[in-house]
Amino acid sequence: MNNQKRIQKTTANMAAMEMDQLLISDPATIFYLTGAWINTGKRMLAMLLDKTEKCHLFVHEMFQQPENLGIPVTYFTDVESPVAVLNGAVAASGVLGIDNSWPARFLLELQEINPSVKMVRGSFAVDCVRMCKDEEEQRRMENASRLNDLAMDRIQKEIRDGRTEIEMVECLKDIYKELGAAGFSFDPIISYGAGAAEPHHTSDATCVQPGDCIVIDIGCRKDDYCSDMTRTVFYQSVSEEAEKVYNLVKEANRNAIAAVRAGVRFSDIDRAARSVIEEAGYGEFFTHRTGHCIGIEVHDFGDVSSANHMVVEEGMIFSIEPGIYLKGKFGVRIEDLVLVTKDGCKVLNHHTKDLTVIK
Amino acid sequence: MNNQKRIQKTTANMAAMEMDQLLISDPATIFYLTGAWINTGKRMLAMLLDKTEKCHLFVHEMFQQPENLGIPVTYFTDVESPVAVLNGAVAASGVLGIDNSWPARFLLELQEINPSVKMVRGSFAVDCVRMCKDEEEQRRMENASRLNDLAMDRIQKEIRDGRTEIEMVECLKDIYKELGAAGFSFDPIISYGAGAAEPHHTSDATCVQPGDCIVIDIGCRKDDYCSDMTRTVFYQSVSEEAEKVYNLVKEANRNAIAAVRAGVRFSDIDRAARSVIEEAGYGEFFTHRTGHCIGIEVHDFGDVSSANHMVVEEGMIFSIEPGIYLKGKFGVRIEDLVLVTKDGCKVLNHHTKDLTVIK
Repeated sequence: MNNQKRIQKTTANMAAMEMDQLLISDPATIFYLTGAWINTGKRMLAMLLDKTEKCHLFVHEMFQQPENLGIPVTYFTDVESPVAVLNGAVAASGVLGIDNSWPARFLLELQEINPSVKMVRGSFAVDCVRMCKDEEEQRRMENASRLNDLAMDRIQKEIRDGRTEIEMVECLKDIYKELGAAGFSFDPIISYGAGAAEPHHTSDATCVQPGDCIVIDIGCRKDDYCSDMTRTVFYQSVSEEAEKVYNLVKEANRNAIAAVRAGVRFSDIDRAARSVIEEAGYGEFFTHRTGHCIGIEVHDFGDVSSANHMVVEEGMIFSIEPGIYLKGKFGVRIEDLVLVTKDGCKVLNHHTKDLTVIK
Repeated sequence: MNNQKRIQKTTANMAAMEMDQLLISDPATIFYLTGAWINTGKRMLAMLLDKTEKCHLFVHEMFQQPENLGIPVTYFTDVESPVAVLNGAVAASGVLGIDNSWPARFLLELQEINPSVKMVRGSFAVDCVRMCKDEEEQRRMENASRLNDLAMDRIQKEIRDGRTEIEMVECLKDIYKELGAAGFSFDPIISYGAGAAEPHHTSDATCVQPGDCIVIDIGCRKDDYCSDMTRTVFYQSVSEEAEKVYNLVKEANRNAIAAVRAGVRFSDIDRAARSVIEEAGYGEFFTHRTGHCIGIEVHDFGDVSSANHMVVEEGMIFSIEPGIYLKGKFGVRIEDLVLVTKDGCKVLNHHTKDLTVIK
């Protein structure tokens, strides 16, 4: 699917959502539609797409784009109001979709200077196009996950007495570099023991202790696409309770993956994971959604949660990552990425989920 | 100035701006007012401050805050609308200030479900408090710049044949680590020759060549505060034209610093830099503003530009960074941080600005 096809699909959604224009500010979506990564920091960046497929970019003059970009660019300077410049291309009536991330300072100013256009949440028109990966995207996602499998092997070999969480993260950075990845797709979580009982633990100077669980939630970027995988292993020994919880989470992961196919709802998949954990009496300790979509960004639009009743389609890629967190004791999370196929899914990660005790 | 004083100053500004409540979503401002760094990724984070100095935080349940935070926290889950939860504490009438960075997806939803409250741009109420650094902040900023001076010395010693820009950036990372800094305050710019003629060049695999100018724009974080300095040096030799341009930029930097004191306008300082460059016929090649405020963030609110007529006050800290960029040839930028005093300013950087040719 080339850029033009992506734009066509977006404008078709805009028509269905009754939007005349769509303002896109998210650099990842602009990359998705144009092939150009434009990062302007706090300065305004906006792409206007109208229902006739016309595109127009608004960029600070300091970020000059190549002539062959194929899209008209209007540049503004530090002494102009970028919103006033943008407004020159916004219709004076009708409906303007606004993407999720556009900052309030620009939106409120545009509402002030153009009060007659109706502004609505518009991201969905393009986000749901981004959800279904085309062949080239699938290839890149598989490749990024392949590197992540290799990194998971290697990082587990680095676990040893005296190694802090932070040192493990540094080590992982080197591993990704050796593997040719373009860095982390998110701040990795490598957490030991009680730290692992916080789902979003920040790696610190804790050293691993015998009997600790070790949650390893890592991902890299490769060719502009992200990987994301979690494994939980144990250091030197595993308690009976931890083994029981581990097997439960593994079963929840397996049961959710078995539920994935085109036509089911995201909430059905969440239920498949959650029911396993609830039935064993651990429901209150599974404190987050089952997964999230992933692609150019590690958290793409769309999640596997009880609140999301959207229907899953072929080509979507998302994580399946149930977890159980026993505060002050330990945590277990097992995460894979899955690519939805007609009859099921392809799991993009191949690292073992057998209970692993690092000796 | 403790958190309570900062909140009092903010509410005084809210009263002057006729706002009843202020919604703050910027993690740096929440840190400034509460002492807590809360980073929730894409999930909503909001602090409501009302004109009676009452504060209230809204945070996803996954990011539990310590009991002694001293501010009530309402937690929401993945299956609730965070905006609906927040709206429970928003007045049904009056004026609600919104900070700059709040994403459109939340703002548009709040406008839909609470159409009778008037939402206006509100960041200024707290941003102008953040502009004037208290004693503790000044101490931290001086300390971060002291480390940056040391880093500038060391990184210049690493310049040699065969070293790519990217390798220099890696090297700088190690230097900051050794110096005890908490990493980069922004992606450093180390650019050679024609690359240096792009003000926001991304470091690449180019190697330094004899005769190249080298723009080194670097900064670190230390104790939650940022440094930022630029020096331009030359490798092995310097052309007559480059020397002339260097001296011009240095004179613009000096002239702007000489213009800094409480009571002048930011635009006066910009003029002091720009007039030197314009009078020498290079005005069109000085393509950006003269500087920006800095503190917890490398780009704090407020800039030194021809469009900013705000009056400079004691305690403000900002950069003075004139530059001249000759496309395809070379670029020169010289940047210091200054702390405004009653009668002038204190320059926080001490690295030499004498023309330096690395042999």
